[in-house]
Amino acid sequence: MKTIITRSRRLRGTSFTSRIEEQGVKSYTVYNHMLLPTTFSTPEEEYNHLKKYVQIWDVSVQREIEITGKDSSQLVQLMTCRNLSNSKIGFCYYAPLVDSEGGVINDPLIYRLSESKWRVCIADSDVLLFAKGIASAKKLDVNIFEAKIDVLAVQGPNSDKLMEKVFGERINKLKFFRFDFFEFNKKTFLISRSGYSKQGGFEIHIEDIEAGLNLYDHFFKIGDVFNLKPGTPNHPERIEGGLLSYGSDMDINDNPFECGFDKYIDLESDIIFLGKEKLIKIKENGIKKRLMGVKIEAKAITITKEIPMKNSEGKVLGQLRSAAFSPKFKRIVGIAMIEKDYCKQLQKFQIEINNNVFLGEICNLPIE
Amino acid sequence: MKTIITRSRRLRGTSFTSRIEEQGVKSYTVYNHMLLPTTFSTPEEEYNHLKKYVQIWDVSVQREIEITGKDSSQLVQLMTCRNLSNSKIGFCYYAPLVDSEGGVINDPLIYRLSESKWRVCIADSDVLLFAKGIASAKKLDVNIFEAKIDVLAVQGPNSDKLMEKVFGERINKLKFFRFDFFEFNKKTFLISRSGYSKQGGFEIHIEDIEAGLNLYDHFFKIGDVFNLKPGTPNHPERIEGGLLSYGSDMDINDNPFECGFDKYIDLESDIIFLGKEKLIKIKENGIKKRLMGVKIEAKAITITKEIPMKNSEGKVLGQLRSAAFSPKFKRIVGIAMIEKDYCKQLQKFQIEINNNVFLGEICNLPIE
Repeated sequence: MKTIITRSRRLRGTSFTSRIEEQGVKSYTVYNHMLLPTTFSTPEEEYNHLKKYVQIWDVSVQREIEITGKDSSQLVQLMTCRNLSNSKIGFCYYAPLVDSEGGVINDPLIYRLSESKWRVCIADSDVLLFAKGIASAKKLDVNIFEAKIDVLAVQGPNSDKLMEKVFGERINKLKFFRFDFFEFNKKTFLISRSGYSKQGGFEIHIEDIEAGLNLYDHFFKIGDVFNLKPGTPNHPERIEGGLLSYGSDMDINDNPFECGFDKYIDLESDIIFLGKEKLIKIKENGIKKRLMGVKIEAKAITITKEIPMKNSEGKVLGQLRSAAFSPKFKRIVGIAMIEKDYCKQLQKFQIEINNNVFLGEICNLPIE
Repeated sequence: MKTIITRSRRLRGTSFTSRIEEQGVKSYTVYNHMLLPTTFSTPEEEYNHLKKYVQIWDVSVQREIEITGKDSSQLVQLMTCRNLSNSKIGFCYYAPLVDSEGGVINDPLIYRLSESKWRVCIADSDVLLFAKGIASAKKLDVNIFEAKIDVLAVQGPNSDKLMEKVFGERINKLKFFRFDFFEFNKKTFLISRSGYSKQGGFEIHIEDIEAGLNLYDHFFKIGDVFNLKPGTPNHPERIEGGLLSYGSDMDINDNPFECGFDKYIDLESDIIFLGKEKLIKIKENGIKKRLMGVKIEAKAITITKEIPMKNSEGKVLGQLRSAAFSPKFKRIVGIAMIEKDYCKQLQKFQIEINNNVFLGEICNLPIE
């Protein structure tokens, strides 16, 4: 069912909303209380284009929570199970945030800007309030705020060439999950080699809106030769790549082991974080479910809530949480939370979509 | 510009979404990561109907954060500037939540269910994470979770008669901002005399989804005689009534004095809340801006961000944050944050909407 989104200041636009509306955006989702474009043409067309050429996405909804001050490192570590004690300036860290019950409350990319300056680039939940709650209760010496930063993602195999044209050769010396400062038109931008696709690319963090709009227009002025188009995070591409979506694939009722974040969980060292005690217990007891990939012999699906998956005897073996038609596999691909016993490649299941039953099988993430 | 909303589990529906889609919902907004219906016909038609008859709204997006345990009262008080030390079981309290900087982070209705059981019925921000942050940092003896409760609002002058028909005479002995338990079909519902309109009514808090769906269907089976229709919080009605919308009218950058919450701020007693020290300073220094009503000589408007309002010399005197066409005043009504010197009735201003300049005047809230 197609319904219109009602506008208000509560779902605010970004600095680029007027640009993408001129470029013909067709649909939005809401993310961190802001509008995130979701299609310009069709997900399939954009999938194929993203894998061959280059796109610019307005992903300003990835809000950046800036944490500075003497106790900033302590606060950032308190929130995540990833060991950040040896973290380096100029690096980005994918770091699940967990509460004291071991529930995942966000899965941000954390940027270390200096000894005592961090930016937590968040998925869709109010990490600002979590950080403020901890800091004020502990009377930490920190300053916490949502930075006025909008983000453009440049994604796709031609992103290297496009970015080199604008920022010079040095941009392509930037390694994955690192950031540095680059100049265009005498303005400086923080740029990271990162992004919510597996096609390679960059994220440009824009503090000066005017400079950002000029940069945006410049990209589209020179972009034709690289087949540049406006785009959005692409649902089938990110599912195939195993890039998780907080709120869809996992939420506060899931722990980081269940989400497959094992390599980002440090229970051995002496770091202090809120969920540590609980995660130690969870590890001792073992987990009962885990996120896996799925393929379903169907062509179309709309997910609005979990959909149960059953084995041939009718037993529920998991819950489908995200799904989209994959132009590569010519069927639905998805991400599902699966009971431990059924977490194996090629495990068959049945699923009811719009009163029809379809067959599917479980697979690893990324989906290959 | 009309754009489609893209569905996903991250913007989940409520227990009533399938019902309201059958009833022809036309548009949604997103609120607390869920779908909130915004129109079935037109805001004007629904405004007129709401003021004369009765509507049922799916306002399950008013998520209820349940806080229980020995330290629950301490935690709830830590979050709000309203003095809850003498709060009574069976009462609802409108209570601005403030952070340690004095910024408003939500304006919930807080229900006291027992000495050590509270439900915080929230506006659009993740209060759960704020509460969890404080509790885990302070090691409070509390249990905090988002309760599995969906809410139906019954609003409008005929709500008394409709509710009496279903729940019996006792329902109409319930006073404003109080709650009690009532039975339908051998199932018990917590019902409060409350709601996001000025037309009178109730909110039904539903824990048993099956029972809630039966109740919903029963209402529409018997509702014709009261001219019952499905509805939604009505934008012009709530603006006229001075009912604020968190995220639109105010946010974390505004303090409770600026929002006109003076009567809910206790700086005199010995209660302990996070923002107290800061609010004392703000009170000493006085505020520089305040929320006011506005009327604008225009017929249509879409708000996506603050719009500056200027005096005849071109000086910005405030920012329009919410607005809608009022069938009563035959012009736009709105809520705006106004510089202190201009916070007076009949103060004229000019505002640019879609490249046209319109005249307006400032008024008190509620708008009369």
